[in-house]
Amino acid sequence: MRALRLQGDVGIEHLEIVDLPAPEPGLGEVRVRVTAASLNYRDLALVEAPFNRDRLPFAPLSDACGVVEAVGPGVTRVAVGERVASMFFPNWIAGGPTAERQANALGGGGTGVAQTQVVLSAEGVAKAPASLSDGEVACLPCAALTAWRALAVEGQITAGETVLLQGTGGVSIFALQFAKAAGATVIITSSSDEKLERAKGLGADHLINYRADPEWGRTAKRLTGGVGVDHVLEVGGAGTLPQSLRALRVGGHLSGIGMLAGGGAGVDFSTLFRGNARIHGITVGSREQFEAMGRAIEANVLRPVIGERFRFEDAQAAFRRMKAGEHFGKIVLDF
Amino acid sequence: MRALRLQGDVGIEHLEIVDLPAPEPGLGEVRVRVTAASLNYRDLALVEAPFNRDRLPFAPLSDACGVVEAVGPGVTRVAVGERVASMFFPNWIAGGPTAERQANALGGGGTGVAQTQVVLSAEGVAKAPASLSDGEVACLPCAALTAWRALAVEGQITAGETVLLQGTGGVSIFALQFAKAAGATVIITSSSDEKLERAKGLGADHLINYRADPEWGRTAKRLTGGVGVDHVLEVGGAGTLPQSLRALRVGGHLSGIGMLAGGGAGVDFSTLFRGNARIHGITVGSREQFEAMGRAIEANVLRPVIGERFRFEDAQAAFRRMKAGEHFGKIVLDF
Amino acid sequence: MRALRLQGDVGIEHLEIVDLPAPEPGLGEVRVRVTAASLNYRDLALVEAPFNRDRLPFAPLSDACGVVEAVGPGVTRVAVGERVASMFFPNWIAGGPTAERQANALGGGGTGVAQTQVVLSAEGVAKAPASLSDGEVACLPCAALTAWRALAVEGQITAGETVLLQGTGGVSIFALQFAKAAGATVIITSSSDEKLERAKGLGADHLINYRADPEWGRTAKRLTGGVGVDHVLEVGGAGTLPQSLRALRVGGHLSGIGMLAGGGAGVDFSTLFRGNARIHGITVGSREQFEAMGRAIEANVLRPVIGERFRFEDAQAAFRRMKAGEHFGKIVLDF
Amino acid sequence: MRALRLQGDVGIEHLEIVDLPAPEPGLGEVRVRVTAASLNYRDLALVEAPFNRDRLPFAPLSDACGVVEAVGPGVTRVAVGERVASMFFPNWIAGGPTAERQANALGGGGTGVAQTQVVLSAEGVAKAPASLSDGEVACLPCAALTAWRALAVEGQITAGETVLLQGTGGVSIFALQFAKAAGATVIITSSSDEKLERAKGLGADHLINYRADPEWGRTAKRLTGGVGVDHVLEVGGAGTLPQSLRALRVGGHLSGIGMLAGGGAGVDFSTLFRGNARIHGITVGSREQFEAMGRAIEANVLRPVIGERFRFEDAQAAFRRMKAGEHFGKIVLDF
Repeated sequence: MRALRLQGDVGIEHLEIVDLPAPEPGLGEVRVRVTAASLNYRDLALVEAPFNRDRLPFAPLSDACGVVEAVGPGVTRVAVGERVASMFFPNWIAGGPTAERQANALGGGGTGVAQTQVVLSAEGVAKAPASLSDGEVACLPCAALTAWRALAVEGQITAGETVLLQGTGGVSIFALQFAKAAGATVIITSSSDEKLERAKGLGADHLINYRADPEWGRTAKRLTGGVGVDHVLEVGGAGTLPQSLRALRVGGHLSGIGMLAGGGAGVDFSTLFRGNARIHGITVGSREQFEAMGRAIEANVLRPVIGERFRFEDAQAAFRRMKAGEHFGKIVLDF
Repeated sequence: MRALRLQGDVGIEHLEIVDLPAPEPGLGEVRVRVTAASLNYRDLALVEAPFNRDRLPFAPLSDACGVVEAVGPGVTRVAVGERVASMFFPNWIAGGPTAERQANALGGGGTGVAQTQVVLSAEGVAKAPASLSDGEVACLPCAALTAWRALAVEGQITAGETVLLQGTGGVSIFALQFAKAAGATVIITSSSDEKLERAKGLGADHLINYRADPEWGRTAKRLTGGVGVDHVLEVGGAGTLPQSLRALRVGGHLSGIGMLAGGGAGVDFSTLFRGNARIHGITVGSREQFEAMGRAIEANVLRPVIGERFRFEDAQAAFRRMKAGEHFGKIVLDF
Repeated sequence: MRALRLQGDVGIEHLEIVDLPAPEPGLGEVRVRVTAASLNYRDLALVEAPFNRDRLPFAPLSDACGVVEAVGPGVTRVAVGERVASMFFPNWIAGGPTAERQANALGGGGTGVAQTQVVLSAEGVAKAPASLSDGEVACLPCAALTAWRALAVEGQITAGETVLLQGTGGVSIFALQFAKAAGATVIITSSSDEKLERAKGLGADHLINYRADPEWGRTAKRLTGGVGVDHVLEVGGAGTLPQSLRALRVGGHLSGIGMLAGGGAGVDFSTLFRGNARIHGITVGSREQFEAMGRAIEANVLRPVIGERFRFEDAQAAFRRMKAGEHFGKIVLDF
Repeated sequence: MRALRLQGDVGIEHLEIVDLPAPEPGLGEVRVRVTAASLNYRDLALVEAPFNRDRLPFAPLSDACGVVEAVGPGVTRVAVGERVASMFFPNWIAGGPTAERQANALGGGGTGVAQTQVVLSAEGVAKAPASLSDGEVACLPCAALTAWRALAVEGQITAGETVLLQGTGGVSIFALQFAKAAGATVIITSSSDEKLERAKGLGADHLINYRADPEWGRTAKRLTGGVGVDHVLEVGGAGTLPQSLRALRVGGHLSGIGMLAGGGAGVDFSTLFRGNARIHGITVGSREQFEAMGRAIEANVLRPVIGERFRFEDAQAAFRRMKAGEHFGKIVLDF
């Protein structure tokens, strides 16, 4: 099989496609022939992270669509020939987050899916929604499930509520689609008027160019008649949180998207709590949540927004595109 | 003012429009000039109920739209000139149901809204959604709020779930609209193919003529791939509950709509609990829930479905239409 | 190994202890040497059920404590030497109830634990609470978890709430202990003043002899100052539900315990829904819920109440004791 | 009447008792003869806050017990002679927090209760738990309700869970009592071994002197077997939050107590969200929550811990005691 590996050093230029023997599925495992994969910002961060020098060669990517081509002993849950998506957390089947369930995330130092064949836990794959192409399915495991968990699971979004979204990356665009499917109103920010127009085409109700309007939190609140928005998906981190809190209604819900959030400067403590916000740290979700999301995608004929497609062989170019930050929606690798 | 009163005896033919002195709003009260009202099945039941002979003259109807024309001492919450809806339970502002909050329902023996002017508690009215006409607003207080509470509040309906609805009366048609706005799939039953076609026009995904298919519960389950539906709005009572339970998935949600449900023969105990259903008895809802529903209606540009309109003066005809049971959606009185 | 089997025909007298070859654990399985087991009413019902004639020989019992003595290939979750409890539903690890998760309950026609050695799924056992003896651990899998799920999970019981319990069988006595540990007030019924006194010794606040007081539902409501109780554990079925509903406050929570509930005559539909009750059908629970219950048992030093103990060899006598219905708490078999 | 007022300037030394005409209750109001009041840290902060120079004379305190001695027109909810507690947020009756419901907190610039007679909204008082003395009732409105909402309402605390509490001020000591009543395990910190011993006497399971153990968050986690605590009541603010997050389990619940929290240095964004915490900003609670808390207090015979008592006339001394920060539990003023 051919596999993308970070080797020699960290950095995009050290990503190489190498030939390796195809792995065999063990007890409770399946081997999947990968047909498409997608990139998340986390993948770029890990490829460039100095601490990953200790883990080379490193196998990137968590999100894949593929077809089961072999099953190991004891596997009855899935059969050869089934089209599946990889689960970001192979051990998180159902229930709330725990350290054990969030262990061994794909593409985080152990198994990565950027290879033509990959062995996964039989429990760690989910049936692909039939309405989607392979490339679309590959967009779901991390970004879509993060947005779904934030809004539908932890936020229990209800028709008529208002959602504030930041930027037009993968998580925010999925959140836009899920929010509109659920009957909510969407306010979205970007530094690009062109991207805002594309978001409008996907159903966004209110557009704010945060370059032109650095007080976008106040603007968002004003758009709700002064009450404040019901939900914020905070993907920007310390730099944007103050505006997010300004936008949020008293008792509103804020999702802190762990994987995307930058660290650095902090958030004032009393500002954080004064508005009686409900805040959830969100790191992807469970297979059960993925399956519920799949039903929502099929029932509402939602199509993941793919901003760019690259051949697997051009993975370096895909990572550079992620780094440029100019994309809209997801970046996909076709195998 | 002119007011509809049941007097002399129970029965539709004993409904009369009488002239009465216009009431003055007391402490914490407002006087509303009624512009439209709507009928619910409960109103018919009460007009015909033998036990109401003890409460004559009886003032029917709970659901009105109108304009505040006078406010009593101490009222700051609403102002003269505001367009409002009457609240079915004037004392239920927020929180869960309690005996106190569900006391003194309109049209239940005390105040009724079928009159040109009515005095209501200032807390017991809500701002009318701006996107709706007066007649449409008058459809909301009982039927719409019942459907909203069943699905959005107690059921926490999520995109991708499946809802089974019975018939095409007011509650079911509002539930159809709310379910579709929330991204759910709808299965609806009726004895009339023509009404099923109208429901399809409103977004219903699957239609079942229960005359042609008495095993409609099993059919509904099959339509979900054998898993069962996520939500049932049980409006038919003892006669339909067995099929509803057959349709429901393990752990699914069933709303028992108290006001509409007939009594009579019972439900087998073990059948009721075997599927680990979550069951909520539902009797309308709170003002806070009404306000959230209003936001959903405005955001999704939902329009209540008015099946029939009558002049206030023709109230008897409106009640007869309700009794015939041939209508689709709501029956409205225009003032 | 020696194993209890129902063979020849249904009925307690057809329970026999037979010698069988010890089973070997397969992929993902463990073999447990059973040290204690407990009986539930369901076990009796299944031993006597005519439909079980088609499933003879039948292996009874779901609830055991034991020690892992061998593990099959691929098992890392538990190790030889660990003391464990059997899980009633071996496939229900976490999340809400589903048909799949509730399939293959122990003692229901497939594997039963009334044998000296039993092979179980490695996922279908949980660590035994260290504070309990083997006999006490054997009381937990069905009755305790049912009571825990009813009150702590679905009922989200809160300090200061009031719980109405029916009788002094296993589920009710566990519910009494969990309710008191959670700071709730307990009203309990029995036909025996002596049993009521024993319940008082375990913390019950109010005692009602339902023989002496057939209107016990009204009495329970009066004990709450006329508001009604917050929770009912309905274990009696159609015969007791009307009184339970009379006792319940508007918006209160009723748990219908599926396994114990008799069928037969039904419940009036409108009575069921009028009080806006929240009703959950309850059939045991998940391993995750069992583990949370175990923490509560250890933290509060709760000790399961064992009413009677029998040697494994005297299993027929234990079943006869269950049938007599005179016991208080659990009936345990020692191996 | 005699009333405590901050006048001339901010600072404890500017608190004076003045004679003022007794106020008359207006529409929907009651006049309460105050028998006891309690101090919260917030009261000290407001007395010393420079921005309060614009609001002099300022009427301090929110927490009182008293007897209704007169009712205004339209008041039916309470009667003369009833013993009541003042509600911190007079407008927050039920439902979640909103800006409107959290407006006009007592002791925040409008009405304060440190006076022999005070006029309050009839909706803004609650029946005093009968099991408590006047001084004990006066401890409840702010500190107890904050702890109750954090644990019982937002945290849905369950028997067997573990709670980490910081220090021995009013909120933490109430949280200790509520947590123990609910069957939870409590870890508490203090800089004083003597206070830790007193906390042990109230039921605390684990004691940490944070002076001796600056890595107390890690210690708390170790005490849970490495899993982490289920709940933290964060009352210390930016200085303690990092240790709190270290102690919390993945998916654990953290209550940020708004009124007590200092501002200043911030919290690293990714640390905040990485553990998938559920975080609630908490500012006191609703009357409905107060009433539920009252039932828990009565059912579990909980007694508020009064650390110090002062005569109303010695209010300055009481504020100085609060400032010294050496107290344990609540500081009460007797009238």
